[in-house]
Amino acid sequence: MKNIAIIGASGYTGAQITQLINADANLDIQGIYVSEASLDKYKPLSELYPSYQDISLKLQPLTQQAKQHIIATADAVVLATDHAVSLALAAEFHAQKLAVFDLSGAYRFEDAAQYPKWYGFEHTQPQLLAQAVYGLAEWNKEQITQSSMVAVPGCYPTASLLALKPLTDLFAGSLPVINAVSGVTGAGRKAQLHTSFCEVSLTPYGVLGHRHQPEIATQLGHEVIFTPHLGNFKRGILATITVQLKADTTAEQIAKAFSVYDDEPLVHVKQNLFPKVDDVVHTTQCHIGWKYDANNHHIVIASAIDNLMKGAASQGLQCIKIHFGL
Amino acid sequence: MKNIAIIGASGYTGAQITQLINADANLDIQGIYVSEASLDKYKPLSELYPSYQDISLKLQPLTQQAKQHIIATADAVVLATDHAVSLALAAEFHAQKLAVFDLSGAYRFEDAAQYPKWYGFEHTQPQLLAQAVYGLAEWNKEQITQSSMVAVPGCYPTASLLALKPLTDLFAGSLPVINAVSGVTGAGRKAQLHTSFCEVSLTPYGVLGHRHQPEIATQLGHEVIFTPHLGNFKRGILATITVQLKADTTAEQIAKAFSVYDDEPLVHVKQNLFPKVDDVVHTTQCHIGWKYDANNHHIVIASAIDNLMKGAASQGLQCIKIHFGL
Amino acid sequence: MKNIAIIGASGYTGAQITQLINADANLDIQGIYVSEASLDKYKPLSELYPSYQDISLKLQPLTQQAKQHIIATADAVVLATDHAVSLALAAEFHAQKLAVFDLSGAYRFEDAAQYPKWYGFEHTQPQLLAQAVYGLAEWNKEQITQSSMVAVPGCYPTASLLALKPLTDLFAGSLPVINAVSGVTGAGRKAQLHTSFCEVSLTPYGVLGHRHQPEIATQLGHEVIFTPHLGNFKRGILATITVQLKADTTAEQIAKAFSVYDDEPLVHVKQNLFPKVDDVVHTTQCHIGWKYDANNHHIVIASAIDNLMKGAASQGLQCIKIHFGL
Amino acid sequence: MKNIAIIGASGYTGAQITQLINADANLDIQGIYVSEASLDKYKPLSELYPSYQDISLKLQPLTQQAKQHIIATADAVVLATDHAVSLALAAEFHAQKLAVFDLSGAYRFEDAAQYPKWYGFEHTQPQLLAQAVYGLAEWNKEQITQSSMVAVPGCYPTASLLALKPLTDLFAGSLPVINAVSGVTGAGRKAQLHTSFCEVSLTPYGVLGHRHQPEIATQLGHEVIFTPHLGNFKRGILATITVQLKADTTAEQIAKAFSVYDDEPLVHVKQNLFPKVDDVVHTTQCHIGWKYDANNHHIVIASAIDNLMKGAASQGLQCIKIHFGL
Repeated sequence: MKNIAIIGASGYTGAQITQLINADANLDIQGIYVSEASLDKYKPLSELYPSYQDISLKLQPLTQQAKQHIIATADAVVLATDHAVSLALAAEFHAQKLAVFDLSGAYRFEDAAQYPKWYGFEHTQPQLLAQAVYGLAEWNKEQITQSSMVAVPGCYPTASLLALKPLTDLFAGSLPVINAVSGVTGAGRKAQLHTSFCEVSLTPYGVLGHRHQPEIATQLGHEVIFTPHLGNFKRGILATITVQLKADTTAEQIAKAFSVYDDEPLVHVKQNLFPKVDDVVHTTQCHIGWKYDANNHHIVIASAIDNLMKGAASQGLQCIKIHFGL
Repeated sequence: MKNIAIIGASGYTGAQITQLINADANLDIQGIYVSEASLDKYKPLSELYPSYQDISLKLQPLTQQAKQHIIATADAVVLATDHAVSLALAAEFHAQKLAVFDLSGAYRFEDAAQYPKWYGFEHTQPQLLAQAVYGLAEWNKEQITQSSMVAVPGCYPTASLLALKPLTDLFAGSLPVINAVSGVTGAGRKAQLHTSFCEVSLTPYGVLGHRHQPEIATQLGHEVIFTPHLGNFKRGILATITVQLKADTTAEQIAKAFSVYDDEPLVHVKQNLFPKVDDVVHTTQCHIGWKYDANNHHIVIASAIDNLMKGAASQGLQCIKIHFGL
Repeated sequence: MKNIAIIGASGYTGAQITQLINADANLDIQGIYVSEASLDKYKPLSELYPSYQDISLKLQPLTQQAKQHIIATADAVVLATDHAVSLALAAEFHAQKLAVFDLSGAYRFEDAAQYPKWYGFEHTQPQLLAQAVYGLAEWNKEQITQSSMVAVPGCYPTASLLALKPLTDLFAGSLPVINAVSGVTGAGRKAQLHTSFCEVSLTPYGVLGHRHQPEIATQLGHEVIFTPHLGNFKRGILATITVQLKADTTAEQIAKAFSVYDDEPLVHVKQNLFPKVDDVVHTTQCHIGWKYDANNHHIVIASAIDNLMKGAASQGLQCIKIHFGL
Repeated sequence: MKNIAIIGASGYTGAQITQLINADANLDIQGIYVSEASLDKYKPLSELYPSYQDISLKLQPLTQQAKQHIIATADAVVLATDHAVSLALAAEFHAQKLAVFDLSGAYRFEDAAQYPKWYGFEHTQPQLLAQAVYGLAEWNKEQITQSSMVAVPGCYPTASLLALKPLTDLFAGSLPVINAVSGVTGAGRKAQLHTSFCEVSLTPYGVLGHRHQPEIATQLGHEVIFTPHLGNFKRGILATITVQLKADTTAEQIAKAFSVYDDEPLVHVKQNLFPKVDDVVHTTQCHIGWKYDANNHHIVIASAIDNLMKGAASQGLQCIKIHFGL
């Protein structure tokens, strides 16, 4: 039994991983925390999320005393906090020998030079960054087992990388094109005009400049064009990916490449059958469909996940269970 | 040709009435205004509402100079402003002989004593309040013609009163029950957690305490139970109303009572056929369906309007055209 | 360990109860069945519902041989079939000593005379009907334990009765008014114009003539006005209920009446705090909020459930577990 | 004043163009028609579409007598019929000297050999096909003026071609990738399981095999990869397009290429600002946003239209007005 502290539990991702860990027979929740300034401190989680009536935990302010208590009693912390907050907290808890599972972007790039450009801060923890591993669960199990600093991938990268990583050897010259549509929970739980109910309508954003583009490119080892969109639904991501493959590629080769997932319980790949977002919402799964045109050597792949589950919380839980051998 | 100034044009209601007046061959727009503190000042309206590409007007700050210019050149002002703001502006412009069409609640109650309880302010303009008429267009044409201070009704009262006013002579003792569901535009254009996309889900609010209850009761001359709900759609209101009628009431009597609308182009009444919200969205119409159970003497009426149109902007325009005889 | 056969498993309700029973450690699934004529026969359930990737069961045609096999090996059948189909199948399986949990309306009225009017058929099984108990789990545990013919309540009646049954002693003379809005899954999984995506928009239906009205009235022991609506969401029901209470009723009396649910894990009652539909979607819970106006002696209650869960499948599972003492 | 007969007026597109022509001061409606077998014959259009209360026209069956009457009295026919139906009707009316505006795909390909593959029929009217012009209004005005057989483009091609045609001289070698999401009205007004409310969720369809791909490629003069999606909204299309441009392309060149629309009132192009679907729903407009990455020479363009308006009915009306010089 491992004891987990969850920091940033009032947000959509933090609440979701609280629910998942709470339901897991092998894990205990040490406590759930929000920043000292949060208006939600001392509230039961079920006040913010009434569907979690069976979770009696209250949100605690992350005071110095609370940190001491976490260090004394927890085996790991989950950080569902802003990037800059995770940056510091990860170092603080890791230095005290806790395993850290960070759902933010603060430790996803190996190269510290990327942070000022994409996250707006200098990376102040280069030593911990060097130990961080990328928690794409199906691909990095060994690393996740060995490192106690796990950077859980972003939602778009998870959907994109699970679809593309098996195929890299088949890529031809032109850049893979990833068009992805995310549910609005991806923007977090705070009042903003562009995510208010009346304003939401399918639209691209972050065009040719979203921080998940270099995350995908780095992990894939290949540049891509990535265009995210805000969709008019609450949860889920659909990434539709178009790639030119080498001229002699066959459908059999592609099927063989995707067979890497044959023994993976959470990744389901189908030829010529495409997922819809609701197929995976509220699940831990990734559904991939693909079709290949042998005449023009282009493959179209659709990859669907729940952005809060496989794209954040449930993949975080996968990493915890892999790391602790549960 | 009448010249109209629109104040509060950046909100959903103000923008909608700008579009309607702009499209009306008998009306000119003197200018569109926002408060001096608004971040939207100097922006083209089409920047906030890209579907209004053919409106080239810019939002002007309502400075003292702008007010002088309005007074000098406009025939009327439309106030799509907060209640407390309308309270003062209406008096200011009316004193200068402009007709005032107020879309807020500041002049809807005859009785000044109601304002502290329902709007949180003392009514500081009792003389103007005494002149104000209630702009329920189909019922108060004569008054709207004669008064230059028109309080355009709220969205829920419009849907409810159009359905109930013909039937008051038939009411039995128990209270009419109005359950109404409004689209989220009814909450206005500002970022709030409860109207953010991920939080919206059908729910009642303002139960047994919404300010539209006394507005309905006053105009109807009869108490009612009114329960508003927030629905997961952008525009429109559906009010479902249950009333116990006198024991000897017949369907024919009801049909005759509703025949008051036979010559009204915007109110469509059908027996045993019920509207859906989308039947009226983006229209100026009110659709009413009703069914009567002669055994238990209860009638169920459904009344649908677009909350931003017949529930605000297009009824405001009706009032303008009635007042000026257009 | 009890072995359950599920008939009509291709529909929304049948698939949902399959998922729930499949996940229950105390229950086995004997098989999942569709009619012999169904186009879905022999298909994996996960082909119709891709989110159920971890359920490997295939839909079997309900042949005579299949029935014999069910009789030989199952402890109970769940009927998620049309009313007329359930009528016959319930009798057939019950005669062979299987417990029957019927999610249709075929055994919900005690009085056989109601069926021609509300369901369009003569009730051909009066003896079995006499044994049938109404599976409103929180209220009829003793009966559900003792009878092997359980008629699981409809979705609207469950939401309405859980809210109203504690209060019947407080009712004054006028009829309780129930306005309820259901998600579209309530209409079942078949292509119909009025439930096609582009046609759905909030609207009442079955006004003053829906078959759930007498079901509610019978179980409540009091007439009601019941107006159902189709809402533009997939799952969930919100019933907003207005009742005139006796003139001397106090809020304390109401709170005491609702304390009947204090030890019920699935029913959560709150004063002056109202649920939204999404609070209960995908859960087994019923959330009830209420507010009382002591001046006019009216209470407004909102009751929310997931129509496919507490309104059908999860309440069916509750009945199974109560009946078998699990 | 021109007199227009509308055939297939009960569908979403036919009803929409009826509303537009009805509102146009320069056009009369000769009649609105459905097939003789239609269950909707003799119904008022407003029974199917209650928001069209001010249209008193009834749907007439297209009998031989009706056809004679059309030929005798109409100047043009609008065909909002199935492809195979349009194929024959267009020839029949055109032979009688009526102008034909066909909203189906029956006359969109110049090359008759394409029809068996993409539409499942041999093209039986090669002579008329030779006279047909492609009604992309902003690009083919001269042709539309001169020919009385106009094939109005599909919704996806309109959104895609308006975005891509200005740029063809700048294309580099790799194939443009078009990802488009359409509202569900694009699937027409008939009950189908995959467009029923509960089944709709963002998903690709027709991958690497949709008939609009060759329509786009033919009109563009360049192959493309086109992946359509069904989105969970009623109206509108957003096409997000990624194109590799020649290595020396500058943003200025692109801006200049798009200046072809500077005098077009319906096409609005913005650099670095992207449309959302609701910006154009219920409008006749096309909104285009684009951003260029000079480092990798890729442009991302988003193009939004209302699929029933600029993607069908309002473009049909544009063609009528261009053809008749109105």
